[in-house]
Amino acid sequence: MESINLENTLKALNLQYPPILDKKDHTKYVKDWREQYVGETSAVLRPVDTKEVSNIIKFAHDNNITVVPQGGNTSLCGGATPDKTGSSLLISLEKMNNIRSFNVEAQTITVDAGVILSSIHERVEEENLFFPLSLGAQGSCMIGGNLSTNAGGINVLKYGNSRELCLGLEIVLPDGKIMNLLTELKKDNTGYDLKNLFIGAEGTLGVITGITLKLFPLPKMITTLFVESKKIFNALKLLNIFKSEFPGCIESFELMPHNFWVVAKNNIENMVMPLEKIPEMGVLIDISSYSNHDIITNDQGEIPIINKIENVLAECLETDLITDATICKNQAQSKALWSIREAGAESEKKELEKSNLIKCLKHDISLPLEAIEAFHNDAQKMITSFLPNLKTIYFGHLGDGNLHYNIFGNGSLPDGFEGKSLELTDKLYEIVYKYNGSFSAEHGIGQLRKESLKIHKNNVAYSLMKTIKNQIDPKGIMNPGKVL
Amino acid sequence: MESINLENTLKALNLQYPPILDKKDHTKYVKDWREQYVGETSAVLRPVDTKEVSNIIKFAHDNNITVVPQGGNTSLCGGATPDKTGSSLLISLEKMNNIRSFNVEAQTITVDAGVILSSIHERVEEENLFFPLSLGAQGSCMIGGNLSTNAGGINVLKYGNSRELCLGLEIVLPDGKIMNLLTELKKDNTGYDLKNLFIGAEGTLGVITGITLKLFPLPKMITTLFVESKKIFNALKLLNIFKSEFPGCIESFELMPHNFWVVAKNNIENMVMPLEKIPEMGVLIDISSYSNHDIITNDQGEIPIINKIENVLAECLETDLITDATICKNQAQSKALWSIREAGAESEKKELEKSNLIKCLKHDISLPLEAIEAFHNDAQKMITSFLPNLKTIYFGHLGDGNLHYNIFGNGSLPDGFEGKSLELTDKLYEIVYKYNGSFSAEHGIGQLRKESLKIHKNNVAYSLMKTIKNQIDPKGIMNPGKVL
Repeated sequence: MESINLENTLKALNLQYPPILDKKDHTKYVKDWREQYVGETSAVLRPVDTKEVSNIIKFAHDNNITVVPQGGNTSLCGGATPDKTGSSLLISLEKMNNIRSFNVEAQTITVDAGVILSSIHERVEEENLFFPLSLGAQGSCMIGGNLSTNAGGINVLKYGNSRELCLGLEIVLPDGKIMNLLTELKKDNTGYDLKNLFIGAEGTLGVITGITLKLFPLPKMITTLFVESKKIFNALKLLNIFKSEFPGCIESFELMPHNFWVVAKNNIENMVMPLEKIPEMGVLIDISSYSNHDIITNDQGEIPIINKIENVLAECLETDLITDATICKNQAQSKALWSIREAGAESEKKELEKSNLIKCLKHDISLPLEAIEAFHNDAQKMITSFLPNLKTIYFGHLGDGNLHYNIFGNGSLPDGFEGKSLELTDKLYEIVYKYNGSFSAEHGIGQLRKESLKIHKNNVAYSLMKTIKNQIDPKGIMNPGKVL
Repeated sequence: MESINLENTLKALNLQYPPILDKKDHTKYVKDWREQYVGETSAVLRPVDTKEVSNIIKFAHDNNITVVPQGGNTSLCGGATPDKTGSSLLISLEKMNNIRSFNVEAQTITVDAGVILSSIHERVEEENLFFPLSLGAQGSCMIGGNLSTNAGGINVLKYGNSRELCLGLEIVLPDGKIMNLLTELKKDNTGYDLKNLFIGAEGTLGVITGITLKLFPLPKMITTLFVESKKIFNALKLLNIFKSEFPGCIESFELMPHNFWVVAKNNIENMVMPLEKIPEMGVLIDISSYSNHDIITNDQGEIPIINKIENVLAECLETDLITDATICKNQAQSKALWSIREAGAESEKKELEKSNLIKCLKHDISLPLEAIEAFHNDAQKMITSFLPNLKTIYFGHLGDGNLHYNIFGNGSLPDGFEGKSLELTDKLYEIVYKYNGSFSAEHGIGQLRKESLKIHKNNVAYSLMKTIKNQIDPKGIMNPGKVL
């Protein structure tokens, strides 16, 4: 299709915001956050409501034009970046940022797909409610993208993935039809679960335009603590102790090992270390309570939550389960500690810019909790023997078995690293599968992990995915080159 | 296909248990629990493992024979009953009743589809763990059926539906292929969510043969209380008070209004009433605690949970939110009260046998919590003006907005009731939809609600469901005549 024709036809769609046709204004839309993928688009469209999305998709469908839906463009797998052909229309949801309704009593909120995640946090907290989805990109990622990728984050341990936080969806299908599955109901068994098919489909089956979310009571107090142990195994034992001592109150349980701290220290200005020296195996823990002066009993009687945490930690120190610990005295201390954890990907990015590495192999894996230590040992053996001068920096959501297990060159790029990187990743995934894990825990597939999906996904499931894709999007116009 | 041929061909499958071919041995398999549907089958097959299920389905697929999968046969919608043609094979999962693995540390269990729900409860409680799915039929329903219908029950308020309790599935597809989606992982974003497509599909897309379930810590103590209020609105206010006073601890919140108690009293031998007289609007509440002498603070300081419950109830009595209340003193009292609630459907069945009614209109609806009172008022107006002598008996899971809203004749069958029953149900569902509710909250569609699905389901979603069914089961052999 000639661009002059496209310009005229797009005008006929009569969108409230004009299409962005000039290539030089496309930069922020066609490049992914990690700058691994740079694509092109024929036009960036910014619909203001579901009807406009529907009109665009119908137009694309009738004219066999591919479309790439995009939220905050924070995918770590190139899931929202168009390919280099420049033939796709890019639909940015950024102008669809209304809160449609907020039912405080029922603890639900219905929003446009383009609402930024942190705006939802702020709005619901005004009413003493809490939306638990929380991740590093929350200031720029959009809720539609979060649902399209079934985002995880730091609170999955207690509240589940994005999927579990969603009551209803509104979707524009690949033929432009609007499917309204928005509901506040907790129970609805009227036929197949279509909602969950679109959650995590990364825009390959349709465009999510509206979402009804579950909200929760805002905890009255969060106590943040940081502990050091010697081994992952000890950290996992600690998790079970905390889960039984503070049932339903462990909001997050984040692993921050030695190498993570080294990179953080190199790249975060004025960073304050929580403990005297760089911790061996650090764990960041949030414990919630719902009363101002929360009291929880133990065998010795009734003690306030801080005292109880201190007692539990003292016991763990005595038995050498942990080697050091600190409890944040105020919100500022807690925020400072969390900002280090949340800057994990950002710090790594800066570290890469400083060094002369051109490639860092990022992995977002999950494992059964009891298999993490054995996996790590096997993986380290494999990496050491694969090439010299490779360094692993890992961190992640230990409570859910989710590790960001990243491998990069130590100081300089080892010979052959560039050519052998796929081989290295495959070898790592083989170990992941040996321990019944997954090679994509929360980032999804996008462009980055398509090949891995083909290799490692159960054959029957992969072929059923293809069947479903072909049936729902027979023309293959939705987010081409992603997932399948 | 001639029965003699079938007999020989089935022999060739070499199943561990021989096919039941004699019609007179089919009775318990071809009649639903409520005796609304009586069908026929050419043979009842009882596979012992997934391979046998796969072989049976492959045989049926290759020979264009329809199959009806069946668990405990406790569907309230005829979901597991074959049609009257007698041409379907019935696959009972009753011989697949092994616990495949139990990971106490990770709090997960993997079981065959034919394991009876209460057996799972018993097994995990031995290890101080808890599987929360709980419903009236738990002594005979099977976990595969629970997942196939996304069963709800009394603990959805805190733990979610069956769907939320399932980590992984093993499914035999309509061509006999085995799809192994069994996993213990909390996070796995490798492609489309196929698992949830089969949960709640009522055996129309394949046969669930294995399930990995999430387990929870067993509460150390459950306090059961029963309160009386005058109106649903008051009961809902009470729910919000309890949710904020005992966050994360309200296990269930069940509505048992006046008419429910009248029927219960007529049909349960030696029933002990919890309060002096039959309550107007009764609510049965379970509150969990995880410590032997649980202490929760309120503004006045620290008080044990029983004291706290008493204080909260006293305040509610003072403000006339409730009119009477009692706290069970021991497990026996609690069990007695719960057995009345759980016998809800059974008592109604007995009441029908005693009277000369030939039809009772059962409805399993859900509503946004804040709309329940208005719905009930509208519904009662409609029912009163529809025909004389109609009586509504409703009860249900108020915490999830799920009501079992049953209409039947008061003493004798009103003229025209039989012929007009569908019309009455449709009028009721119109009111349900007016308030953004659902006409099937937890029982599913089966045979009973197929027409309602066609009328009331969103058109786009209904047609997408058909697309998916046709694609996954192109020969239409799976559980014919159900759902679509």
